Amino acid sequence: MAQQHTAGATDEVAEVRAVLAAARAAGRTALTAPEGKQIADAYGIPVPEEGLAETADEAVSLADRIGFPVAMKIVSPDILHKTEAGGVQVGVTGAAAVREAYTSIVGNARAYDAEARIQGVQVQRMAEPGLEVLIGTVTDPTFGKVVAFGLGGVLVEVLKDVTFRLAPASEADALSMLDGIRAAELLKGVRGGEAVDRTALAGLIVSVSRLAYDFPEIAEIDLNPVFASARGVVAADIRILLAEGEPVRRRQWSKEEIRTSMRRLMRPGSVAVIGASNEPGKIGNSVMRNLIDGGFAGDIHPVNPKADGILGRKAYKSVKDVPGEVDVAVFAIPAKFVAAALEEAGRKGIPNAVLIPSGFAETGEHALQEEIVEIGERHGVRLLGPNIYGYYSTWHDLCATFCTPYDVKGGVALTSQSGGIGMAILGFARTTRTGVSAIVGLGNKSDLDEDDLLTYFADDPHTECIAMHLEDLKDGRAFVAAARETIRKKPVVVLKAGRTNAGAKAAGSHTGALAGDDAVYDDILRQAGVIRAPGLNEMLEYARALPVLPAPRGDNVVVITGAGGSGVLLSDAIVDNGLSLMEIPPDLDEAFRRHIPPFGAAGNPVDITGGEPPSTYEATIRLGLEDPRVHALVLGYWHTIVTPPMVFAELTARLVAEAKRKGIHKPVVASLAGDTEVEEACAYLFERGVVAYPYTTEKPVAALGAKYRWARAAGLL
Amino acid sequence: MAQQHTAGATDEVAEVRAVLAAARAAGRTALTAPEGKQIADAYGIPVPEEGLAETADEAVSLADRIGFPVAMKIVSPDILHKTEAGGVQVGVTGAAAVREAYTSIVGNARAYDAEARIQGVQVQRMAEPGLEVLIGTVTDPTFGKVVAFGLGGVLVEVLKDVTFRLAPASEADALSMLDGIRAAELLKGVRGGEAVDRTALAGLIVSVSRLAYDFPEIAEIDLNPVFASARGVVAADIRILLAEGEPVRRRQWSKEEIRTSMRRLMRPGSVAVIGASNEPGKIGNSVMRNLIDGGFAGDIHPVNPKADGILGRKAYKSVKDVPGEVDVAVFAIPAKFVAAALEEAGRKGIPNAVLIPSGFAETGEHALQEEIVEIGERHGVRLLGPNIYGYYSTWHDLCATFCTPYDVKGGVALTSQSGGIGMAILGFARTTRTGVSAIVGLGNKSDLDEDDLLTYFADDPHTECIAMHLEDLKDGRAFVAAARETIRKKPVVVLKAGRTNAGAKAAGSHTGALAGDDAVYDDILRQAGVIRAPGLNEMLEYARALPVLPAPRGDNVVVITGAGGSGVLLSDAIVDNGLSLMEIPPDLDEAFRRHIPPFGAAGNPVDITGGEPPSTYEATIRLGLEDPRVHALVLGYWHTIVTPPMVFAELTARLVAEAKRKGIHKPVVASLAGDTEVEEACAYLFERGVVAYPYTTEKPVAALGAKYRWARAAGLL
Repeated sequence: MAQQHTAGATDEVAEVRAVLAAARAAGRTALTAPEGKQIADAYGIPVPEEGLAETADEAVSLADRIGFPVAMKIVSPDILHKTEAGGVQVGVTGAAAVREAYTSIVGNARAYDAEARIQGVQVQRMAEPGLEVLIGTVTDPTFGKVVAFGLGGVLVEVLKDVTFRLAPASEADALSMLDGIRAAELLKGVRGGEAVDRTALAGLIVSVSRLAYDFPEIAEIDLNPVFASARGVVAADIRILLAEGEPVRRRQWSKEEIRTSMRRLMRPGSVAVIGASNEPGKIGNSVMRNLIDGGFAGDIHPVNPKADGILGRKAYKSVKDVPGEVDVAVFAIPAKFVAAALEEAGRKGIPNAVLIPSGFAETGEHALQEEIVEIGERHGVRLLGPNIYGYYSTWHDLCATFCTPYDVKGGVALTSQSGGIGMAILGFARTTRTGVSAIVGLGNKSDLDEDDLLTYFADDPHTECIAMHLEDLKDGRAFVAAARETIRKKPVVVLKAGRTNAGAKAAGSHTGALAGDDAVYDDILRQAGVIRAPGLNEMLEYARALPVLPAPRGDNVVVITGAGGSGVLLSDAIVDNGLSLMEIPPDLDEAFRRHIPPFGAAGNPVDITGGEPPSTYEATIRLGLEDPRVHALVLGYWHTIVTPPMVFAELTARLVAEAKRKGIHKPVVASLAGDTEVEEACAYLFERGVVAYPYTTEKPVAALGAKYRWARAAGLL
Repeated sequence: MAQQHTAGATDEVAEVRAVLAAARAAGRTALTAPEGKQIADAYGIPVPEEGLAETADEAVSLADRIGFPVAMKIVSPDILHKTEAGGVQVGVTGAAAVREAYTSIVGNARAYDAEARIQGVQVQRMAEPGLEVLIGTVTDPTFGKVVAFGLGGVLVEVLKDVTFRLAPASEADALSMLDGIRAAELLKGVRGGEAVDRTALAGLIVSVSRLAYDFPEIAEIDLNPVFASARGVVAADIRILLAEGEPVRRRQWSKEEIRTSMRRLMRPGSVAVIGASNEPGKIGNSVMRNLIDGGFAGDIHPVNPKADGILGRKAYKSVKDVPGEVDVAVFAIPAKFVAAALEEAGRKGIPNAVLIPSGFAETGEHALQEEIVEIGERHGVRLLGPNIYGYYSTWHDLCATFCTPYDVKGGVALTSQSGGIGMAILGFARTTRTGVSAIVGLGNKSDLDEDDLLTYFADDPHTECIAMHLEDLKDGRAFVAAARETIRKKPVVVLKAGRTNAGAKAAGSHTGALAGDDAVYDDILRQAGVIRAPGLNEMLEYARALPVLPAPRGDNVVVITGAGGSGVLLSDAIVDNGLSLMEIPPDLDEAFRRHIPPFGAAGNPVDITGGEPPSTYEATIRLGLEDPRVHALVLGYWHTIVTPPMVFAELTARLVAEAKRKGIHKPVVASLAGDTEVEEACAYLFERGVVAYPYTTEKPVAALGAKYRWARAAGLL
């Protein structure tokens, strides 16, 4: 994300800066309407013609120049809620009415707040009626400047039909926002209504987002309502709030620095275990055992001031004494000893510290955590954790953890912020024999975080898919940037926990009130192209399934089912997952029909009916695999004596393998309905590249849907 | 559902009937505005003052009487789309303008359709502005007359923010509709807007629904827009469409008839198997074997014209020859022989025919199906199927099916319309050892359907929960009535398949266009109090979990977790499932804090932190169980060496059992994060009344949520 100013002309920037400085100097964080107008003019934000009247006479002559009817609004730095103060009148027509309105507005404002400094009344051309929309920006704690677009008026508050993008938004971003609200159709004109000028509306979103991005000191902007019509857009009201303080920037590492240290972390030649122990039950013992039992081929150096040897390896008093280069120091000592040992590791030039101990920020010991962060930054030691279970790098036989070893090598890298979730990952992976390239605990994320891991996994040839559990992002923009790069190569699944506990946020603008944590996360993660898992189980299942499935090359999904009932549920799932049933061309329909009983249903789903022999499954699945117009297959199997589960599994796996030999790579998923033998059949299929589940029609289609979402984000479709 | 007319006065009914008859006589199915007005007046539907002008002079004098401004609309039985025809002008003020509008409207209408019969121009008082809403009715193929309420104007079309109830709607129904739309807050007044008159609005919904219900010949009613304000409601436009034909009524059975035959079906003393066979692989052989192997204690009579004995039992040439009463005849013969055998069963007075064979309506053989239905009705034989796997009644050791026996007796009755789904039920139940009272295939539902089964299961002492897979309902109203009765006693879970393939329906009204199959099903099933499962897996999991959980007695849910990460995800799931985290009172908070480390978090979730011994789990769970202000517990377990999975499972099961002995029955669910040992721990817990799942935070909370939804529908909360 480029950091340069995006404003077209420095003059304009200077003009805005002067307005902001004046407001700051006056001790105000809310700008007045005339200040808003000045800024709007500088950034090409169309507002209705207007002026400030300080007397009733001035109001009349202004209104005469502008043309009737006019809107009139109180201007006071002390009155934020103008309507509430009786400070707004609209549709004022004629000199007498303007005079009367001036008097009444000023009178109301005085009655509302006798102390208020009243600068006058803004006289404004009535906006041409159009669709009321809202455009605004907020400063999100995770993502920084974020632009919002939604329906205006009361509806936006009730329906929260708003969408968000990172600022500055490109024109493509802005256009995607117009399609990103539930009421998107309204913008296109419904029931004879006219379509709005999309280019002008998108242009306004771009300008507002640039304004927010160019001035970090602007906390929130509200253009509400904006009237959008076929003839253009105009912001009837502009509201700008300044930030109380300055945002803090974190230390940044270059991509190359990240790659270098991450490579040494994930593929180390030697590992030191600080706090290694001979005593079973101790973390330092478990870590040593797992490193050894896991089959790590590099050097393992126990460090323990009180032992000569640990588990048959020579032990060192200090990490400083370990001979040669060390790539990773695993810390298995109490929190209070970490800083001193980290200092030693830093002096020795060890690039990675894996901090298992808890007792830092998560227990309120913020100072202790800041201390180790400072040591790490000073010595260039990257910190993983603290408060983690460690990590696995299976292709390098590395189990640097106190849990149990895991050795099913495969294509998915999993990370978790929480240790509990890490244990669930481990158990799930083991029971489903999920092929894993890495499992990494992130814990307190004092230093290394998701974007560092993404940067590494994006290039790691063993990793085909990345799944991350996270509760927050330290730097949402860095994550988005890393995710966007990664997604071009492989899918990224995210389980964002804490969706619903955003709670009430104090907000000074409508946009602020709408920008609940999760609403912003959801839109921006989607824009970044990650696949958001709705829950833990889905994250795990996607992680298991995505590396197994080839990427689809088109949108045509065909369901072939032995059970009509499964066909209906599979069709439901297809729609739920944003996929579409292929409209089967007549010749292909005819071809399917040749293989199924006359009362079976071709079309899509292809219902081969329940009592069919293996040859019917075989003929129809082969047809689906070999016809180039079909891009993905969803199979619904029904357990019968005629075609038992393992017969179905074997024939399907064989057909998929045959197709692969012919260069045909299509995602195939299956739902198996039957007695318990279907479980074995599903396991058999999964290991052979078919994502298969028993007793559910939803999971196989959800996995296919996740693969499609990635393929779309990666530009493959 | 009472069938009598609900109208207050027969005069009004007669008046409406006359208007409808006149329209019918004129060969019209769309009523004109004046006809609509007459009907509205009869049913107390407030419409703006208006009149029909046949000349420009009449229009002027009408407008004078009504008061300016007025709306003017063409009246022609041949012009349905008045705006399109240039036949509408609003806000017309002054005699000259009215005259001009009259001429222009009639001219436009003539230009639009030279053949149109023009009766004049309706002159109408302009409705007082208010919130625009829509009220309408449709005739749903499943549920009959259904009333709709939603936002009016263009938004209703774009956002489809509409809710449905059976007509006639009670006032309580109508009030619940006001809260049933996403934009419900708008009705209460937002940002200074006034609240609408809810009583008047609900009253209008009731009136419109009564009108639709009283006149089966009315296909659709549209009141769009209705202006609702603090001062009342007024329907600015009323549109009534008549049905083309008359609805057909099905044969009805009394509750007592249903109970009698269902009791004999589910607890038979003797079963005849028509088509019993000695030949393995034949359905008639599998059914015999399953009946015998399942341990059925009653008489089993094989019927086969070619055998003397089958599997050691005396065989009869015909079911007529079987001695004594027979409660159930299971048919295991080809479709073409069913009618003749059913005739014999009918003559023998057998009350139930279980029709396994396929080859009826599902393969296009509608005549064959109609034939057996006629035979069944004539002899009073109730038909289960055809095209089914049979059924299980486990507490009576009855496996009347060609699948494999199932004998884990328990509290859930499962039914499925599709055989494939039935097989999934069987496999799932077996692998999870789900306690089952019955599994029933419904297939083509030529006769017995979900409402018959509900009527039986509601009274069955072995059944604690009913789960039904269905693709359609033959009689939605009978289902709703049976469900409402059942739900007072036990939960009913429904998986409604075919949610998304409603497809485009031809509709003559806005309400009709909005009444997609699933929208109506969803609202009406929810109103009936059933728990709708989003997918097959959820239906199965709810069926497994609901009988295990006691009913909650209040809304206070407390999460106790060893993993903070699980706590966050469990909290997300709690909100997703419409539950709420208890706000823990200070004394209880204090009590929890006494048991957890100082850096743990009390509040809710109660985070006991990861490294705690069994005693911490024990103390906090006991506290949650014993404090009467806590109504349900959600446990998050984290696998550690200190508290291994089975230790957690045993202590939790023991605490729950102890509480039960003290008369404390609270639902407890658990999410276990850990290595594979957690799977055994979950099975152990499930068998002991704690709904526990590994590797997921969502499923246990979803099960709890389902139990709460039922408890609310049953009026327990």
